[in-house]
Amino acid sequence: MFIAMNRFQVLPGQEEAFETVWASRDSFLADVPGFVSFHLLRSTGEETHTLYATHTVWQSRAAFEDWTRSEAFRKAHAGAGGNKDLYAGPPKLEFFDAVQEVLPG
Amino acid sequence: MFIAMNRFQVLPGQEEAFETVWASRDSFLADVPGFVSFHLLRSTGEETHTLYATHTVWQSRAAFEDWTRSEAFRKAHAGAGGNKDLYAGPPKLEFFDAVQEVLPG
Repeated sequence: MFIAMNRFQVLPGQEEAFETVWASRDSFLADVPGFVSFHLLRSTGEETHTLYATHTVWQSRAAFEDWTRSEAFRKAHAGAGGNKDLYAGPPKLEFFDAVQEVLPG
Repeated sequence: MFIAMNRFQVLPGQEEAFETVWASRDSFLADVPGFVSFHLLRSTGEETHTLYATHTVWQSRAAFEDWTRSEAFRKAHAGAGGNKDLYAGPPKLEFFDAVQEVLPG
């Protein structure tokens, strides 16, 4: 399992506008091989910003890397970098490989 | 969906020791109501530390909060705060609520 998270510092009061950007975006992810799930996550609000993160789970890092070279990726990111007035700082992209797992049972 | 992540800054060279601590720990999570999954995640190594995160998914924030008041939680954290020689700084706990979802298909 591989997780890509992009962390966004959203300015106080811009939370609804930020969520609308994501709700109205076509990610083209649903049919990508190796794609497991995408969630937009909202964390705690702080004085200077509210932390959000996109949280995309892939079957493997290879599946993620294949996607970044695909037409689906290009289309999904055609509008990236806009809406700069929503943010207190630049986004931060983080990658994680699962090294241990516990499941119910 | 609710996610609790605890971010650890592990000193360079201590990665294997850190993973061993988690591999030999009994989390008592498998039978907790509302528990979905636990993963230990390893991110990119930087000069000062390697970022790890525990990544626990719950059906709801309420399920997570019930767990924090349970005997299973108390037992799982009885040894917490040890192994300080493994870290470049204190852990940072973050909570996330899913506000949007995309699944395959």
